[in-house]
Amino acid sequence: MSEISSILVIFGGNGDLTKRKLFPALYNLLSQELLLNNFAVVSVSRTKMTDEDYITKMKESIKEFSRFEYDESVFKELKKRVKYISFDFSSDEGYKNLKLELEKLDSIYKTDGRRIYYLAVAPEYFRIIVEKLKLHKMADDSGKYRVVIEKPFGKDLHSARCLNETITEAFSEKNIYRIDHYLGKEMIQNIMVLRFANFFIESLWSNKYIDNVQISALETVGVENRGGYYDSAGALKDMVQNHILQLLTLVAMEPPVRLDTESIRDEKLKVLKSLMELTPEYIKDNVVRGQYDEGYINGVKVPKYRDEYRVKHNSNTETYVALKLFVNNYRWDGVPFYIRTGKRTNRKLTEVVIQFKNMPKILYYNENKNIVPNVLVIKIQPDEGIYFQFNAKEPGSVSQIIPVKMDFCHSCIFGGNTPESYERLLLDSLKGDSTLFTRWDEVEYSWKFVDAISTLWLNESIDFPNYKAGSIGPKEAENLIKRDNREWWSR
Amino acid sequence: MSEISSILVIFGGNGDLTKRKLFPALYNLLSQELLLNNFAVVSVSRTKMTDEDYITKMKESIKEFSRFEYDESVFKELKKRVKYISFDFSSDEGYKNLKLELEKLDSIYKTDGRRIYYLAVAPEYFRIIVEKLKLHKMADDSGKYRVVIEKPFGKDLHSARCLNETITEAFSEKNIYRIDHYLGKEMIQNIMVLRFANFFIESLWSNKYIDNVQISALETVGVENRGGYYDSAGALKDMVQNHILQLLTLVAMEPPVRLDTESIRDEKLKVLKSLMELTPEYIKDNVVRGQYDEGYINGVKVPKYRDEYRVKHNSNTETYVALKLFVNNYRWDGVPFYIRTGKRTNRKLTEVVIQFKNMPKILYYNENKNIVPNVLVIKIQPDEGIYFQFNAKEPGSVSQIIPVKMDFCHSCIFGGNTPESYERLLLDSLKGDSTLFTRWDEVEYSWKFVDAISTLWLNESIDFPNYKAGSIGPKEAENLIKRDNREWWSR
Repeated sequence: MSEISSILVIFGGNGDLTKRKLFPALYNLLSQELLLNNFAVVSVSRTKMTDEDYITKMKESIKEFSRFEYDESVFKELKKRVKYISFDFSSDEGYKNLKLELEKLDSIYKTDGRRIYYLAVAPEYFRIIVEKLKLHKMADDSGKYRVVIEKPFGKDLHSARCLNETITEAFSEKNIYRIDHYLGKEMIQNIMVLRFANFFIESLWSNKYIDNVQISALETVGVENRGGYYDSAGALKDMVQNHILQLLTLVAMEPPVRLDTESIRDEKLKVLKSLMELTPEYIKDNVVRGQYDEGYINGVKVPKYRDEYRVKHNSNTETYVALKLFVNNYRWDGVPFYIRTGKRTNRKLTEVVIQFKNMPKILYYNENKNIVPNVLVIKIQPDEGIYFQFNAKEPGSVSQIIPVKMDFCHSCIFGGNTPESYERLLLDSLKGDSTLFTRWDEVEYSWKFVDAISTLWLNESIDFPNYKAGSIGPKEAENLIKRDNREWWSR
Repeated sequence: MSEISSILVIFGGNGDLTKRKLFPALYNLLSQELLLNNFAVVSVSRTKMTDEDYITKMKESIKEFSRFEYDESVFKELKKRVKYISFDFSSDEGYKNLKLELEKLDSIYKTDGRRIYYLAVAPEYFRIIVEKLKLHKMADDSGKYRVVIEKPFGKDLHSARCLNETITEAFSEKNIYRIDHYLGKEMIQNIMVLRFANFFIESLWSNKYIDNVQISALETVGVENRGGYYDSAGALKDMVQNHILQLLTLVAMEPPVRLDTESIRDEKLKVLKSLMELTPEYIKDNVVRGQYDEGYINGVKVPKYRDEYRVKHNSNTETYVALKLFVNNYRWDGVPFYIRTGKRTNRKLTEVVIQFKNMPKILYYNENKNIVPNVLVIKIQPDEGIYFQFNAKEPGSVSQIIPVKMDFCHSCIFGGNTPESYERLLLDSLKGDSTLFTRWDEVEYSWKFVDAISTLWLNESIDFPNYKAGSIGPKEAENLIKRDNREWWSR
């Protein structure tokens, strides 16, 4: 792994992401002595502020969001490497100053002109920042410059392509780090290890043994303060296009030739290319959208989506999506993947359920009609772990069968203090390892899949809201799986 | 399931087994209200004693060995159904008296002439008791009479056949209950359920996925007060011929047509018939015997086997056996079964280890040369449970792989107070379910297998003792598996 030697330039240095995720992650990395090389941070934002004021603000965030207990000496180490600069992202003057500052820091931290630009800003600024960086010769494809881009990467295939063209004018593909924080989650990183370092799991991993796969990403929260962005996006683009399709690629991919970045991305891409084509007829029958009505979450009354801050009062944006899809390749032929994601549901959980086929209906089945199928559950959040549910004999009985769990509780064993996604991803980008970032063609194929749905929805009327906050979701999402004589595993 | 309506006649009513196992089991069954039908117990022994003295003795045993807290009202229920009779097993007078007593009890307990004779006596008495029972018309194959026989069932194929002929003159095969208390253990009963009520387990259960199977039955105790019997038997006949081969049949058998007694026994028999033929050359290379020397168990010095009570000072009886065998059928071709059992080893455990094949040596293996293979471990005693060991990513690391366990702790979930083997087996014999008992042809094939070894040993000199009490066993047992580039899983 490469040494870290670079200046991290955060655009949006005063924003929510920087406060809640990036600075706490930097602090956590320092706490673990993972950031001791040639390294500095420059935060850029429009708000005028002194370095002192800025760093005090970040200190508060670190205290609130870091997973480590606050330690002044660690913070001091971070503080001395942080510089705050304010300018408007379209101001040429600003970039000139930034450039000068960076060059000064180069000589102090021996960073030799290497930069990582982290675009922690609203997507409308992506283009201008990249263009200005190029204009001021602060970006080229020499390999000295990397750019980290937060979602959303476009709002459909077309806009994503335009954005990508702009970025690739300044940065080559291998220096573009499209971040998907799901990929930084411990248990998601574990999926490949589970599959490719465990013979018994990989042996079971196909349509010969698997009946269906379920991916659930459910939240109890609503749109919170993201109403403006969310209302123009919706669950399909906010969750499915990126996080869930990425998760699906890891579950469904073939073993890569090697564990290097491109071999892995090649296999992930093949999954996206193998996704079934979605016809309007198929979408009508197999994709469900929902929007939450008012309701109760943990006994507290919450407003309907259309009453949320910055959401249009007649919004038809979906806050819930459920769909069934097939991956058309040899491994997965005939295995439905059921996906659901939604806000304001009655639970918070992200998990992948691998449901195995049923036993032949003989032997123990004859005496216990309610034998449940075997499942392997990969729990991603908030609990982390993995378990097999299997059938055992009830002790003392002759042959009464009951389902029991073989459980590996990741959080229990490893203390629940697993690294935050952003720690891992930030460190990877500093080290130049883009394995956990999304390659352009992955983004492209994801949008292609999702566009088929969103385009159809645009032209179809829908009767929203259609599920109560605090419920399991729209009843159509239940029917989607029930009509196949299956059920959502996590009820 | 049939009603219980029978008189249990225990020959050896004053013996160790009756005190430690049978009476506590009867008490436990009564505690669970599983013995409320027409039922009485008659204990027969040579020692003269009043009913009152006998029952007082049994009360002490129950208090010591029952898994339930002592409850006087339960005991009273048992007490009133118990009768003690003393006579010499060869005395015709004794059987006449016994018959009269049983007929009296018939009218009290409405048992209609039904008897279960439990031969809890040394094997030299089996023949005389059965002959006398027949002589006095207390046994025939009408179905009213069952006989439960404790191990050892013979001391080789020839003697077992003779014994069986004697017994079958009085009882038909379906009324002969050859008890193997291992088969009453919860986790052993669970093996069939695990295999045939779980699709993902049965899918993995063959030479396609399994590298080897290990069966270990290790004890820390020595021969205790069984030196007389043990010295004429040895580990091979005491453990392998019955318990371990029975366990092996459950692990290796094909799914039975139905869950009825004969279908299951048919499949178990097929495994025994498929055991490889043991040539003298094969035995020399693949069967290890050991005898313990003095040593330390938990820091306490213990004598060598040859110094144990009632053991011959120049005894060549083995207290340890390890062997490798193959089951020659389509499912198991090429999969070695490694077996070991011994006394005075450094641990007490009985477990079955299913070791899966290795992953191809690529991907994660390249970075972590010490990736361990997946194993499924069925823990039989003293802990009961099952776990998969698999490989996961060490949290926070990039791809450091560590083995972790997905664990189902049977004892934890079900409170550790699982029914004793004898409870289940006694109840089954009372109900007329002989599924968990051994059919004659199973015994026959087991002896055939074991005789090949013991015959060879008789004619070969051996340098005993060859392992220290408190050690893992003879070093030849380590070599047996090491030379195949494998290791005993439970070290």
